[in-house]
Amino acid sequence: MLRSPLLYRALGAAARRIGAAGTRSFGAAAARASGRSAMDFPCIDRLEMRQRDLMAGPEPTYEKVVTGYEVFHDSRPFVCDHGGVLPQMDIAYETWGRLDADRSNAILIHTGLSGSSHAHSHAKNSRPGWWEKFIGPGRAIDTDRYYVVCTNVIGGCYGSTGPWSVDPATGARYATTFPLLTVNDMVRAQFRLLDRLGIHRLHASVGASMGGMQSLCAAALHPERVGRLVTISACARSHPYSIALRFAQRQALMADPNFRRGFYYDGVQPHVGMKLARAVATVTYRSGPEWELRFGRRRRAPDQPPALCPDFLIETYLDHQSERFCLQYDANSLLYVSKAMDMFDISRSVTSRLAAQRDRAAAELEREQLAAPAPCTTNGSVCMAIEDQPASAAGHSQPETEDEIIQDLVAGVADVKQPTLVLGVQSDILFPVKQQREIAEILRRAGNDRVTYYELDAMYGHDTFLIDVVNVGAAIKGHLDNSI
Amino acid sequence: MLRSPLLYRALGAAARRIGAAGTRSFGAAAARASGRSAMDFPCIDRLEMRQRDLMAGPEPTYEKVVTGYEVFHDSRPFVCDHGGVLPQMDIAYETWGRLDADRSNAILIHTGLSGSSHAHSHAKNSRPGWWEKFIGPGRAIDTDRYYVVCTNVIGGCYGSTGPWSVDPATGARYATTFPLLTVNDMVRAQFRLLDRLGIHRLHASVGASMGGMQSLCAAALHPERVGRLVTISACARSHPYSIALRFAQRQALMADPNFRRGFYYDGVQPHVGMKLARAVATVTYRSGPEWELRFGRRRRAPDQPPALCPDFLIETYLDHQSERFCLQYDANSLLYVSKAMDMFDISRSVTSRLAAQRDRAAAELEREQLAAPAPCTTNGSVCMAIEDQPASAAGHSQPETEDEIIQDLVAGVADVKQPTLVLGVQSDILFPVKQQREIAEILRRAGNDRVTYYELDAMYGHDTFLIDVVNVGAAIKGHLDNSI
Repeated sequence: MLRSPLLYRALGAAARRIGAAGTRSFGAAAARASGRSAMDFPCIDRLEMRQRDLMAGPEPTYEKVVTGYEVFHDSRPFVCDHGGVLPQMDIAYETWGRLDADRSNAILIHTGLSGSSHAHSHAKNSRPGWWEKFIGPGRAIDTDRYYVVCTNVIGGCYGSTGPWSVDPATGARYATTFPLLTVNDMVRAQFRLLDRLGIHRLHASVGASMGGMQSLCAAALHPERVGRLVTISACARSHPYSIALRFAQRQALMADPNFRRGFYYDGVQPHVGMKLARAVATVTYRSGPEWELRFGRRRRAPDQPPALCPDFLIETYLDHQSERFCLQYDANSLLYVSKAMDMFDISRSVTSRLAAQRDRAAAELEREQLAAPAPCTTNGSVCMAIEDQPASAAGHSQPETEDEIIQDLVAGVADVKQPTLVLGVQSDILFPVKQQREIAEILRRAGNDRVTYYELDAMYGHDTFLIDVVNVGAAIKGHLDNSI
Repeated sequence: MLRSPLLYRALGAAARRIGAAGTRSFGAAAARASGRSAMDFPCIDRLEMRQRDLMAGPEPTYEKVVTGYEVFHDSRPFVCDHGGVLPQMDIAYETWGRLDADRSNAILIHTGLSGSSHAHSHAKNSRPGWWEKFIGPGRAIDTDRYYVVCTNVIGGCYGSTGPWSVDPATGARYATTFPLLTVNDMVRAQFRLLDRLGIHRLHASVGASMGGMQSLCAAALHPERVGRLVTISACARSHPYSIALRFAQRQALMADPNFRRGFYYDGVQPHVGMKLARAVATVTYRSGPEWELRFGRRRRAPDQPPALCPDFLIETYLDHQSERFCLQYDANSLLYVSKAMDMFDISRSVTSRLAAQRDRAAAELEREQLAAPAPCTTNGSVCMAIEDQPASAAGHSQPETEDEIIQDLVAGVADVKQPTLVLGVQSDILFPVKQQREIAEILRRAGNDRVTYYELDAMYGHDTFLIDVVNVGAAIKGHLDNSI
């Protein structure tokens, strides 16, 4: 049908005429010579445009992203689990409802990775919070009954001390000199705030995702101070699949030339890396059956040829989501907080090793005040020569078999005997129900006979806890308000 | 216990002494001033080192990655589904076993995304192939009985024409002037090879992952030429979750400053973007229960503080895997082939729309030879003014409801009546069993009464087809060798 030499000539002719269509790429000349037009990359054009805007603009600030919170300034040093020390600490927090006279009606809400203290709107900040529909009079977390507290975790960038904060020793931002954090550090910091607020015992500790880790951690750390426990779409220990997904996100971020090993605050932020990291994260957060219904295989412009830049609706959605996020959250916070999630493991051996490490660091610091200073440094913090400790002192014996691992987890929650609600979502790929069942199982094996375990067939994947007020909300309410 | 002013001074003193530890980052001065040591980033150091090596080194070549294949050179133009035209085409292929006198014993094996024709070792290339243990005398695909053919897909970089190939019109590599491809294009190219080899009818078409799409596509395209059909861990249409994951990979690749809109062949390859893309891909390929057993939560150096560079064994594994891949496969091939996977949809409405598009392009090209040249260009190919066609001609009516979608799929496989094996793996998150069930279901609803559907509880996730010779191999063998 096609006579090839003629066709070939026709192609060449068409090609030459096409040459006028400009391409801004490196290979423009080659493309013009070939006559074939090079593909368009409007999404790369946009990234480059933003890069230029950011170069011309002011330094990043997260103070405008979230506003209207209170700050608890703690001038005492805070020794972290990995031996680093914060000379002082701010904790941003917001509250709703009223604290009872006997201070027994407080509920502490823990956030996910990048969450702020703004869980619900209030007079100082009328924008809807991240759990707007779950909190309020008569709602799942009933502000007529409870005094609700939510904080920004340490390591974050919404008012609590984190890598973006100014190191008082230098007047410069910590960046990646910030000490490594654990979920346990975040929780210990929160209890300092509770102390300040005069709250000895919580009615409940409630959280989802990383907040669910914190919630479990709070109950294990201070069983006598936590009346009830809610943990949603979380885990007792991060498993390799979710570590792998967070690793990929961190690598994307760190590979951005603007990242500059974390010292980007007086330059351009690693916005491209943040955008990529967020795109991967969003896939892990939201890829439930909902996507099939909401986006299916629909394309932005079905009559246009396929494109490598956002083309399917699911792609434009991801692009938009990650675009919005990439300048709203600090890249270093993402690194520190996401790494803390990877390291999370409620096992007794892990908790005791960290406690021992922290105690040594604290003791060493006290000696420092009188004698010679610390002999070494470690990642982002003054180090207490932990590496020099004999292995037997530094590390407790590691459980090896699956049985030993479970036993170690059971031991880690030995004191968690309060009424507990564990919620899992079947469409969650990041914290699959297997991990929720594990939490319920280890608690029951540890002798907790008031563990409620629900599995939801909700369609939103991991983020169901942010959306599904019907299922998640009712489960929380039942647990919090039920007299048992 | 800790007296804060003293501690603070001690911290400062320690900090000053630490200042000597160098940091190569932008914020070195700030870090020194603070006395806190900045975190180490050996993985970023390595990326930067490789960047320097690549700048000093020769242009990329993929000819050394895979060797020993045959090349079928087809000098006839090849009109692609989206209207682009390849003026000529190479198809790299390898064969094993002997073709019967009646040429009825051929099996065509289709590869996954980045696969080469080297499925099995042979005299010209003794390195093990990607399906080494599945092919051979007495094996799943029995070379004593069958003549086995495997090709590198067009769009690839291992000997078949792809973006890395030289455009004969210019003498320069196509890069992103290469025409957009579909899975159907890849299959049509393969049938040209079969014609050349004198094979009218295949004993079977066999493939997994993208190869499973091709396999299904081959049977739908030429039902009379495909005796049996095996499709493993594939789908009848890509769903939004897998599109999202491939989108994230492509974005990571395209965001690499070295990508330069695809014109990187005489510069440094986008090795960082490729590495990131591969890390994400590997998570989707391999994250089965195997990771829990193989890596668990074990860390590279358990007595060292946590690190943001590879730390957990799962991270060093991902780092190593993606490091190995990133210079072995062409970035543009990844874009084109992965996009073709996203576009895959065996529905009749899609297939007929593409066929109509292709026919118009072919007719227009023929007219070109005699009269005025094409009036416009589209992505990477001479365009036949497809955009100018009225919507009714350019696009057939789109099915909307789930019922209509299924009906459309059923119509797309209406002629696929040959014995068919559909294999799904329960731990596969990229092509979940839901999609395998869909393939089996639409075939059965189309009246195919010889559909075998197996679901494996294998632990390797999507890549099970590359590894599990016991389960996958036996299923294939049973299907291929069984007289029915």
